[in-house]
Amino acid sequence: MRFAVYTPPQAKDGPVPVLWYLSGLTCTWANVMEKSGLQRAAAQHGIMIIAPDTSPRGPDVPDDEAYDLGQGAGFYLTATEPPWDTHYRMDQYITGELRDVIAVNFPAADMARQGIFGHSMGGHGALTLHFKHPGTYQSCSAFSPITSPARVPWGEKAFTAYIGPPSIAWEQYDATELVQNTQTRAHILIDTGKADPFLETQLKPDIFIEACEQAGQALDYRLHAGYGHDYYFIATFMDDHIAHHAKALKG
Amino acid sequence: MRFAVYTPPQAKDGPVPVLWYLSGLTCTWANVMEKSGLQRAAAQHGIMIIAPDTSPRGPDVPDDEAYDLGQGAGFYLTATEPPWDTHYRMDQYITGELRDVIAVNFPAADMARQGIFGHSMGGHGALTLHFKHPGTYQSCSAFSPITSPARVPWGEKAFTAYIGPPSIAWEQYDATELVQNTQTRAHILIDTGKADPFLETQLKPDIFIEACEQAGQALDYRLHAGYGHDYYFIATFMDDHIAHHAKALKG
Repeated sequence: MRFAVYTPPQAKDGPVPVLWYLSGLTCTWANVMEKSGLQRAAAQHGIMIIAPDTSPRGPDVPDDEAYDLGQGAGFYLTATEPPWDTHYRMDQYITGELRDVIAVNFPAADMARQGIFGHSMGGHGALTLHFKHPGTYQSCSAFSPITSPARVPWGEKAFTAYIGPPSIAWEQYDATELVQNTQTRAHILIDTGKADPFLETQLKPDIFIEACEQAGQALDYRLHAGYGHDYYFIATFMDDHIAHHAKALKG
Repeated sequence: MRFAVYTPPQAKDGPVPVLWYLSGLTCTWANVMEKSGLQRAAAQHGIMIIAPDTSPRGPDVPDDEAYDLGQGAGFYLTATEPPWDTHYRMDQYITGELRDVIAVNFPAADMARQGIFGHSMGGHGALTLHFKHPGTYQSCSAFSPITSPARVPWGEKAFTAYIGPPSIAWEQYDATELVQNTQTRAHILIDTGKADPFLETQLKPDIFIEACEQAGQALDYRLHAGYGHDYYFIATFMDDHIAHHAKALKG
C-alpha cells in the first residue's frame, strides 16, 4: 500500500496536527498531492496531510472492470462478501494500520489532533469515519461527498458487492444514517459544485443537510455556481478547508 | 493539435494580457493547467494563459522511443532534417498558427500585450522565442530552463536530429547565443531548484547568467535550496512569475 505525506515546515519545531485526505473513485494517493495545491495552506497553517490510496492494490487483489468497483473504489469499508472480503478493509487500514505507520514513522505527527476530509467517495469516507470515530477525527469536511450511499447508484452497487444485500450493515457506512444516532461537536464543512454532473444522481446533499438539521449536527454547506466534480473545484476551495481544520485542531 | 486556455474573470469586462506557457519534455498542454495552480494568480491579476502542447502529435507524426526526441520533445524549433521536417515546426506554430487561432477565437485576448514563460525545454522555448520576437513577447520568465542547449546533451541530441550537425543554425535556437546579439527591455526572471538533478548537466544556468551580464540583459536569477525539477517547484513559485508578467504587461 502506497500513501503520501506532506510534512509542513513547522514539524521541525514540534508536533503538528494531522489531516487525512480521502480521495474519490479512480484516484490514488497522488491526485490530491499533485493537483490540489494543498501544500500552500498546509505550510501556512502547519498541518501534516496524509493521503491514503482508495483501495488495496496489486495483481493478487480482486478487481472489477468497472471504475466504481474493486481497485480504486474501496468505499472506506470492511467487505464481508467474497471475493472482496480477503483484502478490502479500507476503514480498518486508515483508522488502524496506517495510523500506526504514521505515528511511528512521523514523530512530528500529533495523533491527539486529527482531522479528516475527502472528495466524492472520499467525502463519504471522511464523514462516516468522523461519525464512527468522533474522538479520533475532531474536525471534518468534504468536497462533493456521497452523503447517502445507501440511496444512490454508486453506493448501492458497492455496498451490495462488498457487504451484501440491504441490511442494517448498510447504515454503518451511510453518513445520513449515522448522523441520526451520532452527532459530534465538529462544525462540518461541505462544498459542492452546482455544475457537478453527479449532484442530483449520486451526491444528493439535501438528504444529508436535512438529517443534520433534524439531528442538531452543525453543518456549513456551500453550493458553488459554475463548478464541477473535478480538481479545479477542489483546488479553488482547498485553502478554505485547510483553514477550517486548522481552526478546529489548533484553536 | 490540442492546447489549453485559462480565461480570467476580467475577460468579461474587456481585453486582458496573454501569457504563453511552454511545457517541458514529455509534457502536454495539460500538466501546467492541472498541477501548477496558475489559475489563482491568473484570476487575481487578470491574465489569460495559453498552454500549447510540446510537439506535433498523432499516428502519422514521426516519433522516437526516447522521451527526449520526437513527440513530446519538439524543442520549439523548425526541423530541417528528415523525418522531422514534415511536422516539427513548433516555433512557427506558436508564433503564427496558434497565435491566430487565439486572436480569432478569444476576443478578450489582447495580442498587443503578450508574455511568455515555460519550464525546462519550455524555458528554452520561452527564452528563445522572446529574444527572436521581442516586440511580440514583452515579458519573459522561466522555471529551470535549458539556457544553452547547444552545449548540453538534451540540446545536442535534439538539434542534431532536427536541424543537423552543429552549424550557425544552432545559434538561432540557443538563448545564450541569442542574448549576445539581441538584448531586450524585459527584465527576465529565472527560478531554478538547487536540488534539480539536471542543474549541472543540462541546465547550466551560469553560462547564460554570464552572457546576460556581458550583454547587459536584465536578469533576475534565483536558486532555491531544496527544490527539484518538478511541478511542486513550479507551483511554489508560480505566483511570483505571474505577478512578474502582470507587472510588465499591465504596468
